[in-house]
Amino acid sequence: MAERVAGPEIERLIQLLARLPGLGPRSARRAALHLIRKREELLGPLADALQAAREKILTCTVCGNVDTCDPCTVCGDDRRDRDTLVVVETVADLWALERAAALRARYHVLGGALSPLDGVGPKDLNLASLVDRVEADRVKEVILAVNATVDGQTTAHYITDLLAHLNVKTTRLAHGVPVGGELDYLDEGTLAAAIRSRTDF
Amino acid sequence: MAERVAGPEIERLIQLLARLPGLGPRSARRAALHLIRKREELLGPLADALQAAREKILTCTVCGNVDTCDPCTVCGDDRRDRDTLVVVETVADLWALERAAALRARYHVLGGALSPLDGVGPKDLNLASLVDRVEADRVKEVILAVNATVDGQTTAHYITDLLAHLNVKTTRLAHGVPVGGELDYLDEGTLAAAIRSRTDF
Repeated sequence: MAERVAGPEIERLIQLLARLPGLGPRSARRAALHLIRKREELLGPLADALQAAREKILTCTVCGNVDTCDPCTVCGDDRRDRDTLVVVETVADLWALERAAALRARYHVLGGALSPLDGVGPKDLNLASLVDRVEADRVKEVILAVNATVDGQTTAHYITDLLAHLNVKTTRLAHGVPVGGELDYLDEGTLAAAIRSRTDF
Repeated sequence: MAERVAGPEIERLIQLLARLPGLGPRSARRAALHLIRKREELLGPLADALQAAREKILTCTVCGNVDTCDPCTVCGDDRRDRDTLVVVETVADLWALERAAALRARYHVLGGALSPLDGVGPKDLNLASLVDRVEADRVKEVILAVNATVDGQTTAHYITDLLAHLNVKTTRLAHGVPVGGELDYLDEGTLAAAIRSRTDF
């Protein structure tokens, strides 16, 4: 910027907002102005919410989810199926599966996927605690809800080997046509997987 | 959401982030997770920046800009041309013109444009203080940097009438082809204006 338009506090606010995913420098400026205009309804509450999050957010020592309590809301929910454990790469994946509301199980957040190229090895993921949980809780099924990427599939294979000596079934998510998806727009890999895994009608 | 994934503090943070322009419910959730992951580098500083903004931000009593000082940084800058006053609709427009760095003048923020349909009349805009400033500062030129919309042009005409009894020149921004713009993608109105206002090559 050729000229400084506003005081350092506003410039700093814009710079920090621009670091949020989905906001660039332009939209961060717009967001900052929006916040300033709605000081009472939005800026103040958001400042308080961030402060509360900073003070209260914990990583669940059981599953790796983030929450304001430990164990987290999901782990503390007694009505959940204790026989099934869903392994996910990230907290975002856990939240996405919860939104789908297709199962009421517990989770285990790996904190990423194995990636030799990026230098992510087994020691960098929460794998030891996964084995401990499966053994201690006598889990009957581990659903490997990892991404359908090379790293995700590598991780799934690694975990299957890791759990081989335990009496536990490992399953993975189905590949196929997304609900609402049009065949014409799908890649060949997905279409081939959908044909291989076709079901009776 | 069928199940509550996280504690009320996190849900509230997501809801507030979703009210920022450019962020929807999905991207707000992603932004919240990003903030939580980067607690030290981003969440904390952003909480502080918002708190500072809440406490310190003022509306400049001279021009209507928002800043942490009053008069604002622009009005307090002695090196600026005192003969020219740029009239803008909003603070966002002021900031956009400052980024262009095409002139070093002072501004006057109207706080909107006249809009009979939306019930915005002359009393709702900072028009009285505009006349006072033009008279008191012996301004020689008022640049009407209002939007090229019906409301903006109505406002421009109204201000021209308002300043008619004063010895001041009123000008408006040029209409034409945006720099980098392709004729094929421009609307007819812009093209017609660009032809009418053609200049010697």
